[in-house]
Order: sequence, then structure tokens, then C-alpha cells
Amino acid sequence: MDFRDHFPMWDKLTAAQQQRLSGPSFSRTVGKGTILHDGSECTGLLLIRSGRIRGYILSPEGREITIYRLFERDICMVSASCIMNSLQFDITIETETEAELCVIPPDAFRDVMQASAPLANYMNEIMGARLSEAMWRIEQILWKSMDKRIAALLLEESVIEESTTLHITHETIANHLGTHREVVTRLMRYFQSDGLLRLSRGTVELLDEKKLRELCDQ
Amino acid sequence: MDFRDHFPMWDKLTAAQQQRLSGPSFSRTVGKGTILHDGSECTGLLLIRSGRIRGYILSPEGREITIYRLFERDICMVSASCIMNSLQFDITIETETEAELCVIPPDAFRDVMQASAPLANYMNEIMGARLSEAMWRIEQILWKSMDKRIAALLLEESVIEESTTLHITHETIANHLGTHREVVTRLMRYFQSDGLLRLSRGTVELLDEKKLRELCDQ
Repeated sequence: MDFRDHFPMWDKLTAAQQQRLSGPSFSRTVGKGTILHDGSECTGLLLIRSGRIRGYILSPEGREITIYRLFERDICMVSASCIMNSLQFDITIETETEAELCVIPPDAFRDVMQASAPLANYMNEIMGARLSEAMWRIEQILWKSMDKRIAALLLEESVIEESTTLHITHETIANHLGTHREVVTRLMRYFQSDGLLRLSRGTVELLDEKKLRELCDQ
Repeated sequence: MDFRDHFPMWDKLTAAQQQRLSGPSFSRTVGKGTILHDGSECTGLLLIRSGRIRGYILSPEGREITIYRLFERDICMVSASCIMNSLQFDITIETETEAELCVIPPDAFRDVMQASAPLANYMNEIMGARLSEAMWRIEQILWKSMDKRIAALLLEESVIEESTTLHITHETIANHLGTHREVVTRLMRYFQSDGLLRLSRGTVELLDEKKLRELCDQ
């Protein structure tokens, strides 16, 4: 394991700081489906050496809703939330596969982060990335029903026009669904990048009606 | 204005760093309903000297959904997102009242944050608080329909029992609604803290049927 893989700013730490982080750190191999954190404990910073991890919350119906996923080289910081006082939310961290972790104990991590601007700035970047993911998740949740509604409308149009090439603008779709053109354009682009359809000027070509239908039925 | 009001760690900056932040900063008074940021520009860090500001995103139906609100002494950092590369999401920042702001230009802020561990750690705290708020918002959005459904069930029970004191357990409510007891308990506690009802062992006393009805109609 090389700490540089997880901390690109490793060389900006002093030798003593590097030692303070690496000295007390230890490896842990955990099986698939292991709960690493569920709000109570403060394990420390988790460096993911291999495997896949996710953070999820529960929906009112008890469904697990994934908020973010972490991969090799990523850092899980919510498991060190005891030293980041402002980080207050309930999330469950679970391994999706067998995973090898390197654990940096909370006090070692706190000591170095408080003293090192490069480390604190790097943690800022990670925090910003998690915040961006959380915001993206909010949009997905809000827009969830809208993608279904757009898919249903496209399939309906295809029956009406008796063709998979539809002559319909985003503006018209938006008017049908009582939403904004920007929302339709954005969701249609997601559909396109998922291979469900192809967009061109004034037309929408349906490429995968089966998947569009599945989307409606979800 | 005192920078200490916004930066509790101000005294841990060197005199040169304090000067680098305060020197190029300037004041701005803006009217109610002014858009301060909508994704494109990079104004810099905004210190809120007075007034109230909110960050919102649009729902698919074009409704504005408030993600967080900022008050006197708070710092708005999303308007400096150009220097925090990982902060990538669309949010609109708008004044809710007339507001006095102090603007720290992006380059000045970046210079000091990169050099100062205390400042970087303080920004980490702020970022953590925003992340926690975003997570809380996700729960609220997910749970939105559940609180309506609980309110409706309580009103229905009250008609059936011909009383505002209901002999019903959280477990029973959860079973009625196909959810978990924990979810019911948590939402009922919110209802209680909003004065809608009073909880005691085995009973639920409805205190404000009008508000419960309004909740259902939202």
C-alpha cells in the first residue's frame, strides 16, 4: 500500500506528519455486506485499498437508497465524523464486495489535519465531492417521477405517430407534462447517454422501447 | 465589520494572511430577491453581515426547493466554487431580505486557504454542515409523502374512535402504512415538537386537527 495513492498531497506532509498517519494505521480485510459504520462508532478514516463500498439511507418504506459509492483509492471520511463536528447525519456504510481497508485512527488523523494545510485542503475537496453527489441525489429523487412520465409520453407518441422517429420538440413535451423545457432536455440527454434514444434537431428517435417501457414500470 | 465574527480562527492567521483576505475585500448591499449566484459566475466568498440568504434548486415542475438558508455571520462558499473544484452542482443563491455582504475575491481566498491549516479546517467544518443539511433535505423529500399519510391515518382513526385520544401504537400505524416503526416514531416526534399531537405510552392525543388536515392537503 502506498499512502500517495489515497493522498495526492502526501509529499507535502512533513516526515513527522507522514509517520503520525502511517504509524498507527492498520489493515483490515472485510467480507461483502459488512456494515462499517452506522452512525454510532468512530472507526477513523478508511482508505479503500481494494473493493467497493457504498453509503445508504433508508426510505420510509425501508428501501435502501444509495447516496454514494466508493472505490479503490477512495477515502471514506464519514467513519471519522467524530473529529468533524459539523458532519452530522445518519448514513450506513456497507461493503458491496470483499474489501481491503487501511484504517487511520481518528486522533492521528485529527492531529495531522489540524496542522497541515495541504491535508485540510484535500479533505475539503473530498467533502465538496460528497456534497455534490448528495445534491445530485436530491435532483434524482425529485426528478424520478419525471423521467417515467417522459418515457411514457414518448412511447405514447410512438404509437400515435406509428413510428419510432418522433417529430416532437422538447418544448412540446414540457408543455404536455407541465414542466420546463430545460428539465426535459436534461433528462432526454440522460436517456440518450443510456442508449434509449437518439436526439437530433426536431426529432427524437427511440432506440430501445423495451428499456423505456421498463422505466415506466419501475 | 469584524472578520472574527465570520472566522472564529481569525487570530490563528498571520498578519500577512489577514491582510491578504481583508485588503481586497469589499462591501455590497443588495436588495431582497437578488440572485447572487446561479452556477456561472465566481463572485468569491460571501460573508453575510446582515440579512438572510437561501440556496435553492428547481423541481421538475419549476417549484423552488430550498436546500439551505444562511443568516448573519454565515459564510456562503458556493459562490467561490471556482476555487473548490470538487464543488460541482447547480444551486441558485438569492437574498430573502435586503442584505449587507462582504465579498472576499476568489484569488485572495484561495491564497490564504492553501497556506493556512486553521482556515482550511474551518472551511471543512462549513462544508460538513452544508453536507449535513443536504442529507437532511434528502430525508425530508423522501419522507414527505409519509408524514401526510400518517396525518391522514390519525385523522381517520379519530373519526373511527370518535375521540382525539387514540389508542394506537406506532407499530400498528407502521403496519397500516407498510413502513417501519422507527419511521413512524421519528415522524410522530416531529409532529409532537410542532404541537400537532402529544405522545404517551400507547396513546396519541391529537392537539391540532386543523394543522393535521392542512398537512394532508399540501
